[in-house]
Amino acid sequence: MTTTRPDPLPSWNDGEAKSAIIDFVERVTSKGSAGFMSPAERIATFDNDGTLWCEQPMQVQVFFLIDRVKELAAKDPAMKGRQPFKALLERDLKTLQGLGKQGLLELGFATHAGMTEEEFGRLAQRWLATAKHPKFGHLFTECTYQPQLELLAYLRDSGFKTWIVSGGGIDLMRAFAEDAYGIPPEQVIGSSVKTRFELRDGRAVLMKAAELNTFDDREVKAQNIGLHIGRRPILAFGNSDGDLAMLRYTKTGSGERLALLLHHDDAEREVAYDRDFRLSPLAEALDKADQYGITVVSMKRDWNAVFAGAARPGGS
Amino acid sequence: MTTTRPDPLPSWNDGEAKSAIIDFVERVTSKGSAGFMSPAERIATFDNDGTLWCEQPMQVQVFFLIDRVKELAAKDPAMKGRQPFKALLERDLKTLQGLGKQGLLELGFATHAGMTEEEFGRLAQRWLATAKHPKFGHLFTECTYQPQLELLAYLRDSGFKTWIVSGGGIDLMRAFAEDAYGIPPEQVIGSSVKTRFELRDGRAVLMKAAELNTFDDREVKAQNIGLHIGRRPILAFGNSDGDLAMLRYTKTGSGERLALLLHHDDAEREVAYDRDFRLSPLAEALDKADQYGITVVSMKRDWNAVFAGAARPGGS
Repeated sequence: MTTTRPDPLPSWNDGEAKSAIIDFVERVTSKGSAGFMSPAERIATFDNDGTLWCEQPMQVQVFFLIDRVKELAAKDPAMKGRQPFKALLERDLKTLQGLGKQGLLELGFATHAGMTEEEFGRLAQRWLATAKHPKFGHLFTECTYQPQLELLAYLRDSGFKTWIVSGGGIDLMRAFAEDAYGIPPEQVIGSSVKTRFELRDGRAVLMKAAELNTFDDREVKAQNIGLHIGRRPILAFGNSDGDLAMLRYTKTGSGERLALLLHHDDAEREVAYDRDFRLSPLAEALDKADQYGITVVSMKRDWNAVFAGAARPGGS
Repeated sequence: MTTTRPDPLPSWNDGEAKSAIIDFVERVTSKGSAGFMSPAERIATFDNDGTLWCEQPMQVQVFFLIDRVKELAAKDPAMKGRQPFKALLERDLKTLQGLGKQGLLELGFATHAGMTEEEFGRLAQRWLATAKHPKFGHLFTECTYQPQLELLAYLRDSGFKTWIVSGGGIDLMRAFAEDAYGIPPEQVIGSSVKTRFELRDGRAVLMKAAELNTFDDREVKAQNIGLHIGRRPILAFGNSDGDLAMLRYTKTGSGERLALLLHHDDAEREVAYDRDFRLSPLAEALDKADQYGITVVSMKRDWNAVFAGAARPGGS
């Protein structure tokens, strides 16, 4: 590194991944550099589950769904014996994995239908304020990755607009992304349900329906970037095959591009997994990273810290 | 007005509308004021056709469609005798109005299907660089309203994020909104088609399909605000019944809110029209403005200038 500024990425070990990031940011932000990009073009998109925070043993939204089903089952005890609710209440991982990522997501949507978007937002914020990770014992919102918070802040300080593009439910992410990552609701893209516009005692509200609007995974991530952003990102960061289309859409644009893939290979500090994680496998993206020009980030090798703990980003 | 700063809205005549705007902005931006809103909450949404630029005698996108059909008919002369192409080529307003706003929009989408989003963007930019308004003789992009450019800049200077929420095609608007209004692509919401993700010689592209994704009008405007922004606007500005749901969604939120409706009542400087404009009538919103707390802006009374001409906003 040639910079004399304080290290913007102290939780990243020196090595190929860190150099690739810093060299890229310097090229696109240095006026007169062949790779210079105007601030308007500096769009960076990040997957959320497994890229910005921990997605093991299941995505956070599944724990949110389990607690919702507990609440509903308290009023309707017959649910406890019915599938798929039984599997959820018993945290029967094998059965849950059989439902797949989209199946679980749709179940989450179905159990939250019939409330307004604002009611859902409050419910999600209340849950996130106390819900803890079963293994690490911290709030889920503290199981964010410190190196990624540094990267998000570094990119924003370098004139980037940072976005989330995730398979997770858009409204659940919007309930914490601003506090946890400094990413405002309008820069969150995710899976969503259709809504109905209604007037309740003269007040206009958006009611959440049970019908899927978009499952923001794989090719749909690139399509939703087109819909919401209308510009190709110049940097994208993912951790699974669900991110591959976004990484290729980013990397194959003209001019300077950086596509990054987090490999969870650190059993000691987090969980080591890739192709066997049925809820969001990493296989093709890892196997073809070289061919597609994707930079693989090894959690074990490239990060000297993992979780942010109670530390919060000051970015905006 | 109690401010001693230079007038932020010089093309607005003193009166109820101008006072309502300035008083509102001062209330939401004055720390310690009961109506104070954090910058993150300062979301302002504007309709485009008839609110930010001229939509008479037909929306600009219809002229864009006509020129597209001319191009296609040059290669396939049989189109000239077939409806609805015949009506387009002959600018047969009555027949075109019969197709309705959505019908014309879908025809525009159909005649641009099969190209990538980037190819469409370049095509639209080339067209906008030379296409002129049939009555006013200026580029369409110069038939934007000077008072609205001042309002957009004033809001941004006051910490607002300004958005377009329009029935117009999202990609056509994105081709000029940044230059004309200082509004970047990611803050443009509009009607859109579905896209397909494809790899062309190893390059990932989004292909425009002929299938409608969303017709961003009436209730759908509020729904798409929920999807794209995830926060209720605190200020909204429209000019037709197609904007009423957005105005009510904005106005019925809690805290300070301002909903504005432009009434085209200036036959001398522009066109006087409201309930008889079949492509986008204004009737219910005008009749119920008082009841709904919507501030009506009269072009004739409230604006001392109409078009921006060659003047361009410096906002970002």
